[in-house]
Amino acid sequence: MIMPNYHFFKGKKVLIAGGLGFIGSNLARRLLDLDAKVQIVDSLIPECGGNLFNVAGIEHQVDIRIADVRNEPEMLSFIKGQDYLFNLVGQTSHLDSMKDPDTDLELNCRTQLSILETCRKIQSPPKIIFTSTRQIYGKPQSLPVHEEHPLTPIDVNGVHKLAAEWYHRIYGQVYDIRICILRLTNTYGPRMRIKDSRQTFLGWWIHEILNGNEFQIFGNGRQLRDFIFIDDTVEALLLAAEREEADGQIFNLGGENQISLGNLAKLLTELHGSGSYRFVPFPEALKAIDIGDYYAETSQIRSKIGWSPKTSLEEGLRTTLRFFSDHLQHYQMEQKIDAAL
Amino acid sequence: MIMPNYHFFKGKKVLIAGGLGFIGSNLARRLLDLDAKVQIVDSLIPECGGNLFNVAGIEHQVDIRIADVRNEPEMLSFIKGQDYLFNLVGQTSHLDSMKDPDTDLELNCRTQLSILETCRKIQSPPKIIFTSTRQIYGKPQSLPVHEEHPLTPIDVNGVHKLAAEWYHRIYGQVYDIRICILRLTNTYGPRMRIKDSRQTFLGWWIHEILNGNEFQIFGNGRQLRDFIFIDDTVEALLLAAEREEADGQIFNLGGENQISLGNLAKLLTELHGSGSYRFVPFPEALKAIDIGDYYAETSQIRSKIGWSPKTSLEEGLRTTLRFFSDHLQHYQMEQKIDAAL
Repeated sequence: MIMPNYHFFKGKKVLIAGGLGFIGSNLARRLLDLDAKVQIVDSLIPECGGNLFNVAGIEHQVDIRIADVRNEPEMLSFIKGQDYLFNLVGQTSHLDSMKDPDTDLELNCRTQLSILETCRKIQSPPKIIFTSTRQIYGKPQSLPVHEEHPLTPIDVNGVHKLAAEWYHRIYGQVYDIRICILRLTNTYGPRMRIKDSRQTFLGWWIHEILNGNEFQIFGNGRQLRDFIFIDDTVEALLLAAEREEADGQIFNLGGENQISLGNLAKLLTELHGSGSYRFVPFPEALKAIDIGDYYAETSQIRSKIGWSPKTSLEEGLRTTLRFFSDHLQHYQMEQKIDAAL
Repeated sequence: MIMPNYHFFKGKKVLIAGGLGFIGSNLARRLLDLDAKVQIVDSLIPECGGNLFNVAGIEHQVDIRIADVRNEPEMLSFIKGQDYLFNLVGQTSHLDSMKDPDTDLELNCRTQLSILETCRKIQSPPKIIFTSTRQIYGKPQSLPVHEEHPLTPIDVNGVHKLAAEWYHRIYGQVYDIRICILRLTNTYGPRMRIKDSRQTFLGWWIHEILNGNEFQIFGNGRQLRDFIFIDDTVEALLLAAEREEADGQIFNLGGENQISLGNLAKLLTELHGSGSYRFVPFPEALKAIDIGDYYAETSQIRSKIGWSPKTSLEEGLRTTLRFFSDHLQHYQMEQKIDAAL
């Protein structure tokens, strides 16, 4: 495996848009370790992943701006002069997107246009690393899913994520901006959103286990998924930024193995030492937008920039359970901006 | 060729969204001939195709509402009780979409979400016929372009039109709304927008010819395109509405033949008896988003609902030139809402 050049980020100016969220905050911590100059912009929209506790302990080493990324003049002042822009902005709830498509449009499309329009007006824009999602593939027509799989989203969130990805491809081509797109699958780990299932069902399962509640598995539990531990996702983001070979590329991220949801529930409760769950029929609203089995083909990113996941599911889940056992109160209560920093 | 059942529309309640535009107004005229009850809603946004002169002579037979389709409560009052909704809303300028992507998002995405959200909240929503565009294919990877061709838009307008199409597919599937999607290629004829090239370059050529001005062809004039005369497009819309076989389908529309832009210019000036043009290099902004050759494969719509174009390019262009010779003043001046009706 090719290792990232860890000296590479020393002194580099990096903006993390959506940086108070799960992935962004873990990335910020890693970049601080690598001596990068880290700025975060986040709007702390309640339905998105931002949580001020995610930067607890690093809040004085990072320049944190609470701002709406749709405010282009403000974004200009943040983006100008940056070397790298990690674009993690967005909302991820499929169900929310079906209930309120207008808000999803604002949070997943207008936000992206604001960021990209700002970049194209800058003389030397930063290289952008954009986190896209497996959701744009829709129901897999073949497994594992490779990057050439047809893009057939099955909910409004998927449509908007697809649009966001196309914006990046087009701005990269038309305006000659360096861009790399990573299509993520289920990412989990410390600082994920667990107070509901907006980010991933796994977060909610962990929430329920730690609160001593029974959790539910929709369907028969045989649906296959792959999972990536957050440290591996962060490593992919760093490689995508550092490597020139990543410019203009679209890469799947994927787990080393796939696992059925039933087996995942079993593993999770075993690792925690307790916990119960039961299988229930799919709620109607979710059934209509379920994608069935999914796991990614990842030979592209392996061969082109040398990424591969290193953390086993067991190890990752253990770390995650430990983190949330220690900090549960910060991830189930409604956060208050004034109290947390 | 299967003929539409012309009695079918007698007494049917039909809403044409974007009905003051080129296609919508021609459709309205045809539906009136077939004794349908026609309502039009149009926002008359200057960059879109609406023009009050398009309904001159039928303004008292059609219920015309000037309203913003993003206003859902108002749309509810228009859509409720309709049998058919022809959804022709949108802006088509690729260049505008690159200059001002936010406005394109409003006019091509938020508008569509408003229409579809309104439909899903109605007990018995109308069948929707949505006009999509060949633009979502991007630069053709093979010719002729069939419906399974990858969807790879190359400008922001293409991204938003693609999103609009996906909205329709998803709302059709998830909420069981009857929907047919037609992917149009260059449509031309009386009532098209000619005062600029926002709808099609051909409109602008006609404008220049009729004003005695030289017009320009970008590139070497060898780019191939197919053209559909408006009457044939209207016929396709009627068939798509009438035929149950069209429900849930996506069909290309396409011309009987393809023609190079150079030959089209030659034909057009010959038919008019005068006119001059010259070849100029592609402007930079357009070059980046040009799609090269395009013509559609149309076996799907031919076999499934029996549509095929009937008007030769010569005949269509002759009719178009005659119409605009007679009514030029209404298509080059800025329209005034209060004066026109």
